[in-house]
Amino acid sequence: MSPVAVNKTRTLKAGVHVPVLTFFESTAAQDIDIPVYENHVRRMAAAGVESIVVLGSTGEAVTLSLEEKKQLISVTRKVLDGIGFEEMPVIAGLATQSTREAMASADAFAQAGADYLLALPPSYYAGAMTKAAIKGFYTDLADASPIPVIIYSYPGVSSGLELDSEDVLEISTHRNIRGIKQTDHNVGKMARIAAGSPDPSSFAVLGGASEYLIGSLAVGAIGCITGMANLTPVTCVRAYKAWQAGDYKEAQRLQGLIATGEWAFGKNSLPGVKAGMNQYVGYGGVCRKPVPEASADIKAWTNKQLEPLFAQERAFTTKN
Amino acid sequence: MSPVAVNKTRTLKAGVHVPVLTFFESTAAQDIDIPVYENHVRRMAAAGVESIVVLGSTGEAVTLSLEEKKQLISVTRKVLDGIGFEEMPVIAGLATQSTREAMASADAFAQAGADYLLALPPSYYAGAMTKAAIKGFYTDLADASPIPVIIYSYPGVSSGLELDSEDVLEISTHRNIRGIKQTDHNVGKMARIAAGSPDPSSFAVLGGASEYLIGSLAVGAIGCITGMANLTPVTCVRAYKAWQAGDYKEAQRLQGLIATGEWAFGKNSLPGVKAGMNQYVGYGGVCRKPVPEASADIKAWTNKQLEPLFAQERAFTTKN
Amino acid sequence: MSPVAVNKTRTLKAGVHVPVLTFFESTAAQDIDIPVYENHVRRMAAAGVESIVVLGSTGEAVTLSLEEKKQLISVTRKVLDGIGFEEMPVIAGLATQSTREAMASADAFAQAGADYLLALPPSYYAGAMTKAAIKGFYTDLADASPIPVIIYSYPGVSSGLELDSEDVLEISTHRNIRGIKQTDHNVGKMARIAAGSPDPSSFAVLGGASEYLIGSLAVGAIGCITGMANLTPVTCVRAYKAWQAGDYKEAQRLQGLIATGEWAFGKNSLPGVKAGMNQYVGYGGVCRKPVPEASADIKAWTNKQLEPLFAQERAFTTKN
Amino acid sequence: MSPVAVNKTRTLKAGVHVPVLTFFESTAAQDIDIPVYENHVRRMAAAGVESIVVLGSTGEAVTLSLEEKKQLISVTRKVLDGIGFEEMPVIAGLATQSTREAMASADAFAQAGADYLLALPPSYYAGAMTKAAIKGFYTDLADASPIPVIIYSYPGVSSGLELDSEDVLEISTHRNIRGIKQTDHNVGKMARIAAGSPDPSSFAVLGGASEYLIGSLAVGAIGCITGMANLTPVTCVRAYKAWQAGDYKEAQRLQGLIATGEWAFGKNSLPGVKAGMNQYVGYGGVCRKPVPEASADIKAWTNKQLEPLFAQERAFTTKN
Repeated sequence: MSPVAVNKTRTLKAGVHVPVLTFFESTAAQDIDIPVYENHVRRMAAAGVESIVVLGSTGEAVTLSLEEKKQLISVTRKVLDGIGFEEMPVIAGLATQSTREAMASADAFAQAGADYLLALPPSYYAGAMTKAAIKGFYTDLADASPIPVIIYSYPGVSSGLELDSEDVLEISTHRNIRGIKQTDHNVGKMARIAAGSPDPSSFAVLGGASEYLIGSLAVGAIGCITGMANLTPVTCVRAYKAWQAGDYKEAQRLQGLIATGEWAFGKNSLPGVKAGMNQYVGYGGVCRKPVPEASADIKAWTNKQLEPLFAQERAFTTKN
Repeated sequence: MSPVAVNKTRTLKAGVHVPVLTFFESTAAQDIDIPVYENHVRRMAAAGVESIVVLGSTGEAVTLSLEEKKQLISVTRKVLDGIGFEEMPVIAGLATQSTREAMASADAFAQAGADYLLALPPSYYAGAMTKAAIKGFYTDLADASPIPVIIYSYPGVSSGLELDSEDVLEISTHRNIRGIKQTDHNVGKMARIAAGSPDPSSFAVLGGASEYLIGSLAVGAIGCITGMANLTPVTCVRAYKAWQAGDYKEAQRLQGLIATGEWAFGKNSLPGVKAGMNQYVGYGGVCRKPVPEASADIKAWTNKQLEPLFAQERAFTTKN
Repeated sequence: MSPVAVNKTRTLKAGVHVPVLTFFESTAAQDIDIPVYENHVRRMAAAGVESIVVLGSTGEAVTLSLEEKKQLISVTRKVLDGIGFEEMPVIAGLATQSTREAMASADAFAQAGADYLLALPPSYYAGAMTKAAIKGFYTDLADASPIPVIIYSYPGVSSGLELDSEDVLEISTHRNIRGIKQTDHNVGKMARIAAGSPDPSSFAVLGGASEYLIGSLAVGAIGCITGMANLTPVTCVRAYKAWQAGDYKEAQRLQGLIATGEWAFGKNSLPGVKAGMNQYVGYGGVCRKPVPEASADIKAWTNKQLEPLFAQERAFTTKN
Repeated sequence: MSPVAVNKTRTLKAGVHVPVLTFFESTAAQDIDIPVYENHVRRMAAAGVESIVVLGSTGEAVTLSLEEKKQLISVTRKVLDGIGFEEMPVIAGLATQSTREAMASADAFAQAGADYLLALPPSYYAGAMTKAAIKGFYTDLADASPIPVIIYSYPGVSSGLELDSEDVLEISTHRNIRGIKQTDHNVGKMARIAAGSPDPSSFAVLGGASEYLIGSLAVGAIGCITGMANLTPVTCVRAYKAWQAGDYKEAQRLQGLIATGEWAFGKNSLPGVKAGMNQYVGYGGVCRKPVPEASADIKAWTNKQLEPLFAQERAFTTKN
């Protein structure tokens, strides 16, 4: 099971990355709505994001079959190539409960066209998962995987499992482990990891949300993978660019708008995200059951909370 | 998708039920070791348990492919039939993240020979899973499933999701929801549910461990589904029978031994269980990676903790 | 600071113990309402409880000054003596954040008339409190205290700190550590501790609620310390006595009623308890601010949930 | 109980604030070591911090009697005045379980010389503490307090209680509620609060640690209250000043050193902090029992982790 480089390695760039939503037909079977998805990927790429993350938490990956997963990866690659984004990487989420399944998925995802894996640690037997076992999982996977691995630190869906900065730094030197997405939202830990691994081309720190994007950049992260970009990609990208250009005042102003809007998402989980999509961009639909549609109260609150941010997005996109 | 009775309904009996371990070959691929598994099922049935629960947490179900799951169900049925246990039910664990996958698995498991489903609620999007959504999941599944559903209440692997007694009682009247396994270990809740649904033939309360078996029987549970029975099934069954026979003193004595031994399991998760199996019954092996083998320290502690209980098991089985 | 036996040791008896509520005047200052309290203690003693626990969680001890604490202890002793309950012990809750304060309070409480201390471990610096530190706290306190110590295992108010059964058994041999109140509600742990320390006159296991009273007795506990007894002491006592008399059917029936009623308490914390008191026994008042009064919705739900249990209490007390 | 302005209001300045340690004599009684404390306050003021926070979590306030608390406040004021820091505010931590005690302490602390209160919400009855109850606590306290209130958001010691950004903004308009210390470490929430309350002279956002100081400044916080400053105040202050001066590269470099050092503190709680103090500044002692002294292993690890940061501190202070 030695790694075979099936894909050239597309560069993981600094900036805003989007874990795209998955869309479902409004039938009892809730099959994936491929045309809506393709359109969404095109919209994202055009807005200036640096990669498409498929099969993430935001993409309801845990509800998808292996066939559906492979299809989403290959469709994403095809759409990007078709609009001239041949260099934009596709990052595939990997949430498994065994090394065996992780390795098999790594091969399948690479074959389907993924450039990177964003891998959660197995956590069902959290009580047995020592730090050594978690680190061993990542290095075993990275040894075997034909494409590079990004650590996905998300204790909220991993029964609390989380590698400390010292553990992350220890495995960050593996040539096939290339970064971390911190949905632990621990900016101090980002500072430690960035300080201890200062070359982002060999190991990059990405925040797991945009509500603290500017803060994470200030301590050494290179950007974020943020569900918010599904709704307001341009404002997220502009915040990043303002920071890069040294316009700290504008960066902070946009950060305030984004953080306030993103709270609407965080507070009500995925149903809130899809409610916001339906309201502001005209597509989104509902989640696969049993995740419920947002209640009328939640929808109203979400829309009110998002309004200032979306007004900014409209202003940017109209001016463009 | 109306339910079709593919199987006759084998009765869910009062007593001790065993969520059987799965065993793996000691190769890199870690395929299932079917001969060891078949032998284990035979040993369990002979020891007096009332059902075989496959694909449970103890069975490492989350590491198994759908094909492996179906195989374990059909092998179990075949082994039981082959040794004259045609009436013993096979209960299949069901851990999915969507109603869609749950329904598909229900059909597949029923076809493979399962008599009951022991179903966890989807919990990845725990923040979105209202009580109504959880109840809706169970009634939708029960409406569609060809075989009855048992609620699996295990907040420890469900991001804390748990139905309260009032919620459980509300859906307990569904004709195809037939019981609950409480790995919430909440004996007061067992008392409430048993009091509110006093006919176990329509809805049964089962504890999720044997360390409080006698206590749960005293408040109205009909028994337990306990990983401990993999190691010391006879003592577990004897404790139950002592209680049924009115020998409360003996029941309490055995309860003390079981609780002390089970602590060895609970404290060190599945690696501790398999360490105990290797030591005391001569098979068990290791878990699928990345769940690690127990350390030497844990093994030594586990074995010492288990010794009094296993001495009792030996005494019972030698006398038999 | 060597211990001085200031009080004779009143026996800790098997049965139902009540952590009494504290009552406050309905003024802005919310001073303790002593006459209502005295009446409540008399009602409790007459109903058949085995001790009065003052300064517990149910008694809002954390809102009381040291002077108020001493007053409640001495008033309780005086009331009990005045109605012929000279042998009934007074158990004083002890919730401190240092060994120093714990020792000083132990002396003060003993001087005021307490017979036992029910001591929580310091938990503000939970991250620093190793098992050894917790055990050291209890043995240091027990070495110094003029009255015996009961371990109070209540992870819900101790930042999750909890001694395992093996740790409890290790310190249970101290001659001045005499029992444990398990508001961890872990009946399997009760079984282990009772099995490992079988003489309740040297170390007794008490449940921290009555919703699983019969279950805990079945595994070796000697009774419970239950807030429920503030409202329906007679039914709690009758459940215990039915069990003792071998009438398991009646014990289980009463357990069902109690568990269903107690759920009303557990679900809505102390405001629910006081709402039930106001409705069913005509006194109770409200908690010290900022703990709010129960909402109208919660009150209505609580009262409906409690009705069957209180009907039973009325039946018992009318027949008496 | 209408508020009386007993003290002139010293300005809460942007920058680094230090929650000072409390030091104890190495006797059995563990009385406060006032001379060491006075020296420490002098060292802190000289290093450039903007206020002294007494009675915080780092100051072991929960182990102190009311008399000790008042003494520490007045000693701090006296020391500051004696060295020409008449304008530096003293902020007093307030951790109580009732509005009644909070108000009484507010009066006492103001009389003793405190300029601000840093108030935790009562949390023992966390299940009863609705958002409305928490907000009511703060506004009741602020109505009555003679000195301004700073919200202390620290779910780790408050049974998880935490006001969301929208709740904080709602009460931030109270003229006597003047800021928040976010030991929730939620930088996105800081961004939302700073955006919604942009005038720090009426409501200021302060981080609860320095490991993400630069990140929090980037999103609108005015500084931090950080235990780290007890050990390396100059480096913390220099990081802040580099940021203010627009030297983002130096700010980020110092942030990396601080975050790496602070991890040594966070990982091992207060015993680790005092171990670092003993090693690097020659005083510190141990915590009040039962909080244990750091083990030899923890001490060695802590010192190794702190070494690069302390080397920087030495470089700054030697050059000075």
